[in-house]
Amino acid sequence: MKNTFIKVLKEIELEKPIFIEALPGIGHVGKLAADHIIHELNAEKFAELYSPSFPPQVLVKKDGTIEMMKNEFYYLKNIGENEDDYIILVGNTQGLSPEGQYEICSNVIDFIEKFDVKMIYTLGGLATGQTVEKPRVFGAVTNKKLAEKLKKHDVIIRSEGGIVGASGLLLALGQMKGIEGACLMGETPGYYVDAEAAKALLERLMDILGISVDTSKLEERAKKIRKVLHKAKRLEEEMLERMKPKAGDEDLRYIG
Amino acid sequence: MKNTFIKVLKEIELEKPIFIEALPGIGHVGKLAADHIIHELNAEKFAELYSPSFPPQVLVKKDGTIEMMKNEFYYLKNIGENEDDYIILVGNTQGLSPEGQYEICSNVIDFIEKFDVKMIYTLGGLATGQTVEKPRVFGAVTNKKLAEKLKKHDVIIRSEGGIVGASGLLLALGQMKGIEGACLMGETPGYYVDAEAAKALLERLMDILGISVDTSKLEERAKKIRKVLHKAKRLEEEMLERMKPKAGDEDLRYIG
Amino acid sequence: MKNTFIKVLKEIELEKPIFIEALPGIGHVGKLAADHIIHELNAEKFAELYSPSFPPQVLVKKDGTIEMMKNEFYYLKNIGENEDDYIILVGNTQGLSPEGQYEICSNVIDFIEKFDVKMIYTLGGLATGQTVEKPRVFGAVTNKKLAEKLKKHDVIIRSEGGIVGASGLLLALGQMKGIEGACLMGETPGYYVDAEAAKALLERLMDILGISVDTSKLEERAKKIRKVLHKAKRLEEEMLERMKPKAGDEDLRYIG
Amino acid sequence: MKNTFIKVLKEIELEKPIFIEALPGIGHVGKLAADHIIHELNAEKFAELYSPSFPPQVLVKKDGTIEMMKNEFYYLKNIGENEDDYIILVGNTQGLSPEGQYEICSNVIDFIEKFDVKMIYTLGGLATGQTVEKPRVFGAVTNKKLAEKLKKHDVIIRSEGGIVGASGLLLALGQMKGIEGACLMGETPGYYVDAEAAKALLERLMDILGISVDTSKLEERAKKIRKVLHKAKRLEEEMLERMKPKAGDEDLRYIG
Repeated sequence: MKNTFIKVLKEIELEKPIFIEALPGIGHVGKLAADHIIHELNAEKFAELYSPSFPPQVLVKKDGTIEMMKNEFYYLKNIGENEDDYIILVGNTQGLSPEGQYEICSNVIDFIEKFDVKMIYTLGGLATGQTVEKPRVFGAVTNKKLAEKLKKHDVIIRSEGGIVGASGLLLALGQMKGIEGACLMGETPGYYVDAEAAKALLERLMDILGISVDTSKLEERAKKIRKVLHKAKRLEEEMLERMKPKAGDEDLRYIG
Repeated sequence: MKNTFIKVLKEIELEKPIFIEALPGIGHVGKLAADHIIHELNAEKFAELYSPSFPPQVLVKKDGTIEMMKNEFYYLKNIGENEDDYIILVGNTQGLSPEGQYEICSNVIDFIEKFDVKMIYTLGGLATGQTVEKPRVFGAVTNKKLAEKLKKHDVIIRSEGGIVGASGLLLALGQMKGIEGACLMGETPGYYVDAEAAKALLERLMDILGISVDTSKLEERAKKIRKVLHKAKRLEEEMLERMKPKAGDEDLRYIG
Repeated sequence: MKNTFIKVLKEIELEKPIFIEALPGIGHVGKLAADHIIHELNAEKFAELYSPSFPPQVLVKKDGTIEMMKNEFYYLKNIGENEDDYIILVGNTQGLSPEGQYEICSNVIDFIEKFDVKMIYTLGGLATGQTVEKPRVFGAVTNKKLAEKLKKHDVIIRSEGGIVGASGLLLALGQMKGIEGACLMGETPGYYVDAEAAKALLERLMDILGISVDTSKLEERAKKIRKVLHKAKRLEEEMLERMKPKAGDEDLRYIG
Repeated sequence: MKNTFIKVLKEIELEKPIFIEALPGIGHVGKLAADHIIHELNAEKFAELYSPSFPPQVLVKKDGTIEMMKNEFYYLKNIGENEDDYIILVGNTQGLSPEGQYEICSNVIDFIEKFDVKMIYTLGGLATGQTVEKPRVFGAVTNKKLAEKLKKHDVIIRSEGGIVGASGLLLALGQMKGIEGACLMGETPGYYVDAEAAKALLERLMDILGISVDTSKLEERAKKIRKVLHKAKRLEEEMLERMKPKAGDEDLRYIG
């Protein structure tokens, strides 16, 4: 596996779908919201993306079976008051290197472009580093018209700063192909899996898209993720040991 | 050398072999067990794998001759009560970068697939960070049926977590090609070369495979490795200096 | 996007232009000077360079619209007492990896070579780490004749040391193609956006090129950049979190 | 420049030459010795190697002219009592990444193989971290016969350990092509440019090769290098800032 590739699980046809991206990021805000949409609206998976720039590891699930690092494409048809079609991209990781991130996001854009995507929404968190009373939702856009549209839906337009990772790159690479888009960011301390921020983000997104999703189980979903993350501490430490060789780390540089 | 490659030393024929991987990892548990099998059952080397993602160095052996960083394929024929054939992968290193790990493991899977491998076992350690009274053996699998099988052989099915490096990736990439597999992990503090964990791991593996290997010399083997690793401290520090340039490290950025 | 590429926005013809490079670097000295020339002399953009070795992120501008990481080529015709043509390279980033820097700079040289460039000037800062009373301007060159020329324009020829990044590499790669050049460096503490150093650098450059640019608004430009940089602190920290995985950084290595 | 390449400056013919490598390394021991041979015996440069894995920078020489990062091939004909031909590889840097090191060393071996090289000597330092009374010279070899030969010339055969970088890799890659070789290492504290270790190394090498070089000016050469390295401190720090982005390093991640 020298290159990123997408495995199509099911051939589907969509009518000018809206693309939503929510890969793991700050406070898991975006991912939490998108996973919730997928679950509540019964979205179906139709493709998977694999990349040599993902962490070189597998995850172990509750039943002891392994799961490869991957991104997953789901779809929805005729949803909400506009009867829109959707492609939703979620996953358990993002690329590790800059070159990997660019390659993966280019693959995603090339793939979704074929479905004649009409709009991109990328979802994420905006870390404040402080306690957040009532999380606001911020937006960044590919053109000023979109900024006006978002404001009408109570999204605060972000002024200066940056968007790191897939949520930023997908917007930029999409725009290069003529697809407009916006990034929606839920305000979060950023230190934990933030169901409140995800709920705020989801409400703004539903308002914009004219869809409706029950958000009552978001906190439950957040709790599960927190539990898994806690168990994953050991994995993270293992990975660190492996990826950044240190004096005293005898494992990787074994002699004999 | 721009790409990973496998040098075949001897053309062999095997009948639906079982593939065992044990590259250097936590506590050298897997490697210790596999090296022991190779030695005790007189497995023969038939191929070597080289990669530009291995550490850019050579090892110096006891007699002053050098050894390149490499992975090695051994084989065994008609072993144990099931008269199974085996391919065993060991080596003195793993790939350093994520991309390198994916490339190396893909090469390994492509290579062993040609032998019509029927099952993959990857061996490793599970670091507890604490003293271990009587090391248990944990398992992760590619399907639930295998979990049931392992349980019958007193392997504890791991619930959540992750497997970093070749032991994880080979399972996942193998599964993509339709080869099922399991990772067996010996419980270890993780801080030293752990013969006790290797012995526990080896006993579970023998029980599963229906083979029999004398484990009495495992501690002896562990001692040798510890001695070599102790001598290797200087190498590790040299390598660090070279790979991560620091202010004050004048060697790599010589001007003149 | 697997490779660096240049998007030509406008086909232009130039007569043996002078090439000026000023990508972000120490104290923003070079970039500040070049941005000022572009603004004051109304240079027009005619090409953009994108690279997978740039940071995997986008910037958010004041109006909430995004900007991709990129380098930009501007041109000027019949400027100054010598009626010279110019190509000016500026941007919001440089490549992150060594390999990326070489690839990007090779692309730049291949691109400008087609315009029959007669001379390269790369602009940067020379960090002193200390307060600078009256910033001097230092130079390094591709041949001794140029050193003599620069001295006549009150540039101090640097003796020993090095030039890191595009300002150095472009000179070297240009020289390989037979294009001579010089690097001009404004003396700066290096800790902040230094309008004084940029002004000193710009004055020496104008003297050498026989052009004239109003430098009165340089401090104003510096202030704006400082404000943006201050706001960007959060972005930088986000990026760090993403690019260098740490134990406790749960975002990138999410499990579930 | 996407790949390492070698620029031949002069077509030469050699008769089964001996290849000597001495790129920058521990204590500059090897480089100091090889630079000295080149100077004292008037070796002529015939090829240069460039690589995108070298540091992305240029050096500034005493006269203000720049020098690209590169490795250089020199040759000598009919030298010493055996009238041997020689190829000597020196340079101002080694590759930064593991993959770069492998690619560069493979290029070197492919290049020198065409000259029908009969033997490889790589030169380096062996860091003790402590004061060295009278530096000894250690050796590692590609076969046991060579170990016996070196012992006769008062070289101590190293037992276990490793050789990091080009001095190790070139031996291993050469051996793969059927060229035998040895690495000679002068004992050095490793903290400074060590003329004493270089002298000891050079004496052993001359003894082995049956050549004679005046070593009286080695200390002088070491002093010059120390002076340059002292001046280079600033460069090293600049490079660090650039290559490893940190919060607070505003230069590389400029927003604007």
